[in-house]
Amino acid sequence: MDVHSGFVSVTAEQLRAAHERDLAIEESEGVHFERAWLDPESGKVFCLSSGPSKEAVLRVHEKAGHPTTEICELPVEVE
Amino acid sequence: MDVHSGFVSVTAEQLRAAHERDLAIEESEGVHFERAWLDPESGKVFCLSSGPSKEAVLRVHEKAGHPTTEICELPVEVE
Repeated sequence: MDVHSGFVSVTAEQLRAAHERDLAIEESEGVHFERAWLDPESGKVFCLSSGPSKEAVLRVHEKAGHPTTEICELPVEVE
Repeated sequence: MDVHSGFVSVTAEQLRAAHERDLAIEESEGVHFERAWLDPESGKVFCLSSGPSKEAVLRVHEKAGHPTTEICELPVEVE
């Protein structure tokens, strides 16, 4: 899970466009971005992805034009 | 999405037990906890839920014995 800040007043369409820039290039890093969630008031975005490493995920975000350094590896999941 | 800290070295079984304490009482607040993810190294847990308000979500966590104040309302989602 990684977190971005500064997405204040971003629309659903803009979030989708940003997410699709990740999806377009994620294969080169063996990463898959599953879902992303936005709070346009605080400007926070959470992205859930899977991949070989945190660094690979961050490289996709960086190449897609929305870098972040805030990421957490989450090996355990419950439903 | 809410975030807990301090779950260092917690196991998958312990996370499941904590999550099930939320599931057992969530209906009283009209909340549903969808998924939870844990990093046992940093001790961070992310919980994805839906419900009528942030306060309702936090009340469930508090009653279940694992309160937090770190929560973000995420009205926009993309896949």
